[in-house]
Amino acid sequence: MSSNLAVNYLKEYSPFKEKFLDKYINEKLPEAKKLGVISEDQLKRFLEMSKEGKGIRGALVTLGYEACGGTDKETILDTSIFMELFHAAILIHDDVEDSSPLRRKLPTIHKQYESFGKKLSVQTEYKHYGEAMAINVGDIGYFMSYEKLINSNFPVGLVNRALRIYSKYAIRLAHGQALDITTLPIEHINEEEILNILMSKSGEYTCILPLTIGATLAGVTEHKKLKAIEQYGTSLGWAFQILDDILGLFGDEAITGKPATSDLTEGKNTLLMLHLSKNGTAKQKAFQKRVFGNPNTTLEEIEKMRQILKDAGSYDYVINKGWKYVKEGKKYIPQITADKKYQDILESLLVFMMERIN
Amino acid sequence: MSSNLAVNYLKEYSPFKEKFLDKYINEKLPEAKKLGVISEDQLKRFLEMSKEGKGIRGALVTLGYEACGGTDKETILDTSIFMELFHAAILIHDDVEDSSPLRRKLPTIHKQYESFGKKLSVQTEYKHYGEAMAINVGDIGYFMSYEKLINSNFPVGLVNRALRIYSKYAIRLAHGQALDITTLPIEHINEEEILNILMSKSGEYTCILPLTIGATLAGVTEHKKLKAIEQYGTSLGWAFQILDDILGLFGDEAITGKPATSDLTEGKNTLLMLHLSKNGTAKQKAFQKRVFGNPNTTLEEIEKMRQILKDAGSYDYVINKGWKYVKEGKKYIPQITADKKYQDILESLLVFMMERIN
Repeated sequence: MSSNLAVNYLKEYSPFKEKFLDKYINEKLPEAKKLGVISEDQLKRFLEMSKEGKGIRGALVTLGYEACGGTDKETILDTSIFMELFHAAILIHDDVEDSSPLRRKLPTIHKQYESFGKKLSVQTEYKHYGEAMAINVGDIGYFMSYEKLINSNFPVGLVNRALRIYSKYAIRLAHGQALDITTLPIEHINEEEILNILMSKSGEYTCILPLTIGATLAGVTEHKKLKAIEQYGTSLGWAFQILDDILGLFGDEAITGKPATSDLTEGKNTLLMLHLSKNGTAKQKAFQKRVFGNPNTTLEEIEKMRQILKDAGSYDYVINKGWKYVKEGKKYIPQITADKKYQDILESLLVFMMERIN
Repeated sequence: MSSNLAVNYLKEYSPFKEKFLDKYINEKLPEAKKLGVISEDQLKRFLEMSKEGKGIRGALVTLGYEACGGTDKETILDTSIFMELFHAAILIHDDVEDSSPLRRKLPTIHKQYESFGKKLSVQTEYKHYGEAMAINVGDIGYFMSYEKLINSNFPVGLVNRALRIYSKYAIRLAHGQALDITTLPIEHINEEEILNILMSKSGEYTCILPLTIGATLAGVTEHKKLKAIEQYGTSLGWAFQILDDILGLFGDEAITGKPATSDLTEGKNTLLMLHLSKNGTAKQKAFQKRVFGNPNTTLEEIEKMRQILKDAGSYDYVINKGWKYVKEGKKYIPQITADKKYQDILESLLVFMMERIN
């Protein structure tokens, strides 16, 4: 199985994502305009950031829905963009927390507002102003994401069930974010803990949440089926997270839209780093200690770090782990749908998570 | 009419607020514990902050419900704490944005986590770590607030309508916050703009939002009645905001729980400051320029500022404006309810907003 089917599914989703994002934000603009130019400006920046996304999460809402027999394509497409709004809002807060300068090839929202504050000569220190504005834009994004799902045209009982799932994983995400930024020395953390942090802060909301909500909006209530979706989504989430780890250091910046070095220089506890810290030679570990979490690391040193991770087997270890999850995830597909078309897309999606380049 | 009836209504609400906040957070603790001690710690701090609140907003949910004929007291009390969770979350982000050290007599959440990070020796600059953690705790609060309303035992159709109202005002609040922190020189701003910022960032969610949601959960759908509640809530919101302005400089720190000088030293554009900047003598205005937004202002200078605001008539101007809103709000009460008991409480509440001391 190749990733082609998944790639096509995502490609087909993309124009709808743009269309319904535009539609929603344009509906919101008049009220924001009445509040003032700054409110209008916030929405425009938020929309721009939302549209730059790859659309994986919105597409997983429609996929969960269709794989479980849902047929109201227009309504699910319209509803699904709540995930894209949610994802953009998460990233905006995440970027403040990580002090990241770039996202999706654009300056991050807090960086944008740092410049904006300078131009406006607001009476606050500009860096702090930028961060405070980004907190607000993220908050707006969360509320809009909820509003979009609340206003969905699906029956109100299904929407309420979807909202319960949404809240559950949103709370877990915010807890996961906190665990992620409470960076402890890598010697004091084990693989399971790293995986749990990654899963709660990203894998769950990226995979389990949209698939389960899609299935719920299609009317699925059977516990066994929802459980299978959760298990498939969990494997998908692991594969997603593991490749994120890899792209975070080995990705092509021109394609991922963010520096492929930030995980390293920010000192993120990733599986790659953990494996090396346990299995590297004394010399390799000494080098790791020097560059890990060091913002002054040079490009040459980063290149050397990549080579060391390959030499020490850390790269292969992590990649192999990802493929194990692909295999694991496949087992649950027959319990989700008997439709061969969607079985194939779900299988292809697992492969896609390990083969994607951004 | 005195504020006694309103004070009693709020007093009666208070133990229920505590009870249902405890109940909800205790339901959430086991899942947080599974994520780790840090997640558990977040919930405990969030609960503590939520419980310190005065409970005005939660009580307004029950008042809106009861005034409009709702009779399921247990369910409305249980549901109403979504407002207390929401309010606490707002304050947590607000405190980060304003760099406030104290809230409700406790160190603000970002200050708490600054100390926590130091103790834990997290590998991040402590001030930034504290702020990042507070962003997460606030996010958790928003999601929990939504979850609490979504899980309400009222019929799902009513809950959905309530959620639409909630989202509308939550979005306006976040816009209002952004307007509030985009502090422009006071010479460039007029009274209407200041009032609009205050209303969208605080008055609306404090008054209109909970009353309207209470009425909606009682089954009110009639446009005219909802409009009357909105208008009453607007007047109540103005009165609330205006006294907030006053308490922000003339309040007793031991009672309000935050320094009665922060509005001044942070350079908040309040009605008091605006009136003085337009109507003060040259000498008074020169003094205002020196202390306004100046964090090094001495206690003696603050006392002098208070005297100047009284001498220049700014204090009376603002207070009188508040009482005008009390009078305005009364007009809408008969359209909300014909029940004399609730008419009296609603009238007393308007007075309370201008007479409260914290």
